[in-house]
Amino acid sequence: MPDYSASMASPDYSNQGYKEIIAVLEGAVLTITINRAKYRNTFTGSIHRELVHVFDLCDKDDRVRAVILTAEPTAPAYCSGADLSGGWGTLFSDIEKLEGDHSHRDSGGVLSLTIYRCRKITIAAVNGHAAGVGMTGLQLPFDFRFVWSGAKLTFPFVRRGIVPEATSSYLLPRLLGTSRANALLLTGASFTPDSPHIKDLYYQTLPTRQAVYPAAKAFAEELAANTSQISVAYTKGLIQHPGDSAEENHLLDSMAMKLTGSSADGAEGIVSFKDRRLPKFTGKLSQETTPWYPWWRRLDVLHRRAKL
Amino acid sequence: MPDYSASMASPDYSNQGYKEIIAVLEGAVLTITINRAKYRNTFTGSIHRELVHVFDLCDKDDRVRAVILTAEPTAPAYCSGADLSGGWGTLFSDIEKLEGDHSHRDSGGVLSLTIYRCRKITIAAVNGHAAGVGMTGLQLPFDFRFVWSGAKLTFPFVRRGIVPEATSSYLLPRLLGTSRANALLLTGASFTPDSPHIKDLYYQTLPTRQAVYPAAKAFAEELAANTSQISVAYTKGLIQHPGDSAEENHLLDSMAMKLTGSSADGAEGIVSFKDRRLPKFTGKLSQETTPWYPWWRRLDVLHRRAKL
Amino acid sequence: MPDYSASMASPDYSNQGYKEIIAVLEGAVLTITINRAKYRNTFTGSIHRELVHVFDLCDKDDRVRAVILTAEPTAPAYCSGADLSGGWGTLFSDIEKLEGDHSHRDSGGVLSLTIYRCRKITIAAVNGHAAGVGMTGLQLPFDFRFVWSGAKLTFPFVRRGIVPEATSSYLLPRLLGTSRANALLLTGASFTPDSPHIKDLYYQTLPTRQAVYPAAKAFAEELAANTSQISVAYTKGLIQHPGDSAEENHLLDSMAMKLTGSSADGAEGIVSFKDRRLPKFTGKLSQETTPWYPWWRRLDVLHRRAKL
Repeated sequence: MPDYSASMASPDYSNQGYKEIIAVLEGAVLTITINRAKYRNTFTGSIHRELVHVFDLCDKDDRVRAVILTAEPTAPAYCSGADLSGGWGTLFSDIEKLEGDHSHRDSGGVLSLTIYRCRKITIAAVNGHAAGVGMTGLQLPFDFRFVWSGAKLTFPFVRRGIVPEATSSYLLPRLLGTSRANALLLTGASFTPDSPHIKDLYYQTLPTRQAVYPAAKAFAEELAANTSQISVAYTKGLIQHPGDSAEENHLLDSMAMKLTGSSADGAEGIVSFKDRRLPKFTGKLSQETTPWYPWWRRLDVLHRRAKL
Repeated sequence: MPDYSASMASPDYSNQGYKEIIAVLEGAVLTITINRAKYRNTFTGSIHRELVHVFDLCDKDDRVRAVILTAEPTAPAYCSGADLSGGWGTLFSDIEKLEGDHSHRDSGGVLSLTIYRCRKITIAAVNGHAAGVGMTGLQLPFDFRFVWSGAKLTFPFVRRGIVPEATSSYLLPRLLGTSRANALLLTGASFTPDSPHIKDLYYQTLPTRQAVYPAAKAFAEELAANTSQISVAYTKGLIQHPGDSAEENHLLDSMAMKLTGSSADGAEGIVSFKDRRLPKFTGKLSQETTPWYPWWRRLDVLHRRAKL
Repeated sequence: MPDYSASMASPDYSNQGYKEIIAVLEGAVLTITINRAKYRNTFTGSIHRELVHVFDLCDKDDRVRAVILTAEPTAPAYCSGADLSGGWGTLFSDIEKLEGDHSHRDSGGVLSLTIYRCRKITIAAVNGHAAGVGMTGLQLPFDFRFVWSGAKLTFPFVRRGIVPEATSSYLLPRLLGTSRANALLLTGASFTPDSPHIKDLYYQTLPTRQAVYPAAKAFAEELAANTSQISVAYTKGLIQHPGDSAEENHLLDSMAMKLTGSSADGAEGIVSFKDRRLPKFTGKLSQETTPWYPWWRRLDVLHRRAKL
C-alpha cells in the first residue's frame, strides 16, 4: 500500500537494472517501453516486478507529470498476455503451496492497483495487438488509452478456463458500462478499435502502429506543460473515490476546492487566465502535506504469512 | 433465493406442462419461445411463473451452457408489456390485500432476479416490438441482447402513472450510464435500435425479424462450444459483484483465478492454446463445491407471511 | 436539505426580486433564463442564490412539471464559468476565515444538489459555449441536456490549478462512464458536441443557437402534458437511489409499483391506454403523503457554526 507521502527523490531511470522494460524520462514525461519483443511481449514475473517498481518510483518523483507505457511498434504485439510456457501455475507463488488458495495475489492485479493509484497522468500507447493481461492490467487502470486501428483486442479468459483478472471486472464496467463489459468479457472474442463495443475505451485511434506513440507523447507533453500536478492527483482521487452519494461528493470536492483554490497553483490558474497566457504550475506533490489527502479508506490487500 | 449448489438433474423441457412458453434443448443451447402471439405476447401471471420455473431449471442443468429467450418472428411483438385487461391490480396478489403494501413483490422483478442470477450465458433475441416488462424484465437482466432494426422499443412507465419496474432502475443505469437511462426511462418515448440513446444496449442489430433468432442461436452455439461453464459463472459473478473498490476486486479475482487456474478447465485452456486447437471444457457447475462461491452477501427478498 | 413535503404554494415567479435570472411560468413549464449576458453569463454569489431559490420554489410548486434553464441565444456564452474577478477567494465565505477549511461549501455544489433533488423534469438548454461551473453545476444535475452543435464545452479545472467541482466527479462518471469522464475532466480540453467523448451527454444537438430553446420547450411541453408528476418524482428517486444491489432495488421498485399502481394516476394510465387516448394525470406531489418516500438516507451537508 503506497503511503502517499511523496518523496522528492529524483531517481535515474536508466540505472535501475531493468531487463524487461526501458524507462526514459524526457522533460516531465516518462516513457516505459516493453522490451520483450522476441517473446511477443508476454507478461512474466520479472516484467511484473519491473513495472510495479517503475510505477511506484515515478509516482513519488516530482519531476514526472505524465507516464506512457508502450511497446516497440515493430514488436508482434503490444502485449499478447501472460507467458503460459509453464501453465497457469507459473503465476502462482511458493507461498500458496504452503498457505493455501487464500494467499494467492494475482500479479496482474498487483500491477493494476499500482498503476491505478499512480497520481500522475497515465497513458497506454497500444501500438499492437493485445490480449489477456495486455488488455486488462496493461490498459484498464490507465487514465487514457491510444490505439492502433488495426489492433486485435481480446479478453480471452472464458475461452481459457479462467476468469478476467487484474481487477478488470471492477474497472471495465465502470469505464464503459456493463452492456459493453459483458460483450467484451463474456465472449472472449477479438475486437478492433472501431467496434461499438470497445471504441469508447480509447481516447484516440491512429491509422498506423508507428503513429500511436508520437500521438500519445504529444498529448502527454501538452498536459504535462499546462496542468497542475496537484490538481491532477486530486481530480484522479475524486473520480476514483467520489463518495457514496452526491452529498458526500459535495463535502469532498468542497474540501478539495478550498485546498487547491488557496494554493499557489490555484493562484497561478487565476493570474494566467486573466493575463491570457499559459500557466506555469510549480506545485509539487511532495509538498502536499495536508492530512486530509487521501481521504478514502485504504484496504491492505497483502497476504500476511502465517508460517515463517 | 437460489442455493447455488447445482444439481445434476437433466429435466425433460418438453414435459414441464408449460402453456405460455415452449422450451427446447438442442445440444447445449436452450431456446425458450414466448407462446402468446394471439395476445401480443403480453405478460401474465402464468407466463411469469413458467419463465421463472424454466430459468431456475436450466440454471441447475449442467447440459445447458446458453439460454435464448425469443418470440415467434410472426408475432405482433416480442412482448408488448403486461396484460392490463384487469388493471394494475391483476399484478397484485391476494396476500397484499391481507398484509399491506410492504408485502408486494413485483412479478417482473422476481423474473429479472431469476434471469440475472442464472449462471449460464443468457441472450434475449428481440425479434419484434417491445414495451414495458418486454423492455425491462425480458431484456435487461440478460448478458446479451440481439434486436431487429425495425423494433419499436418503449419504457412507457411515466406515461402510465407508474414507475420503471423489474429492477430496471438498477440495471439500466449500470448497462448504459445514467445519461441514457434518463433518456429512456424519463421520457417514456419509443426508440428504434439505431437511436444513440439505446443502441449500445444491443450486441447485434439484424435487418429482419427472421434474422434475429438464427444470429442469436449461432452466437450461443459458438460460445457454448468454446467457453468454460465454470469460467462463465465466475465471470458473471465478478461483473455483478465486483466488490466496493479495486482493492476488494483484486482479492476476489485473485481467489477466482487461483481456483479456476488450478482446475481441469484451466488446464485444458492452456493445453488447447499450446496445441493451437479449440478447447473442450468438461467442467460442470454441479461439481463446483468450493464454499467460497458465491462470495457475495445474498439478500432474501421474499415476503414472510405474518398471518396464516 | 429539502423536506420533500411539497407545499401547494403557487408563487409568482415574476415577483421574486431576481436580478440575475428571469423566471417565467407558461402552463406547466418553468423557463429560467440566465440574465448576465454583459458579463458572459459568469457565475456569481448572487446568481447562485437566485438559482437555488428558484429551483427550491418550483420543486414545491404543483403547477410546475418541467423546468428549463437557458440563456439568451445572443449572449456570448450559456455560462462561461465562475466570475474570477476577485480570484477563487470570492467563492469562499467569511465563515471560512473564522472556522477553517472544513467549513467551506462549494457554491456550485450547493446548486447542483438543489437541481439534482428537484423532483420535476429538469432540462438544460445549452445555447452557447460553456465552461467550468457552466459545464458542471449548470448541466450535469439535469435530467436532460439540449445543445448547440457549435458550442465549445470545457471542464478547465486541471488547467486552473483547482479541481472539478459541483459534484461533477460523482455525476459525470455515472452519466457517461469513467473512460469518457477521464477524457473530459483530466484533459481540461475543449470539446464540441460531436466529439465521441461528450456526445452522449446530450439528448439532442441543434444546428443553431436559436433552435436550442424551442426544441427543449417543445420537449418539455410534451412531457409535461403526458407524464405523471408523481411517476416522474418516483422514477428520478429510483434512478438516483436504486439501492446497493438488484435485490434491494426489487424491494424498492415493488413498493413504488404498489403505491403508484394503486393511485389515481395509475388508474388513469390504464384507462387512457385502453381508450387509446392521451392520459390526463391529476396527481400532485403535495398530495403524496406516504411516509415511505423518500426512502433513502439523506446526508445533512450544512456546516454548523461552532462560533457565534
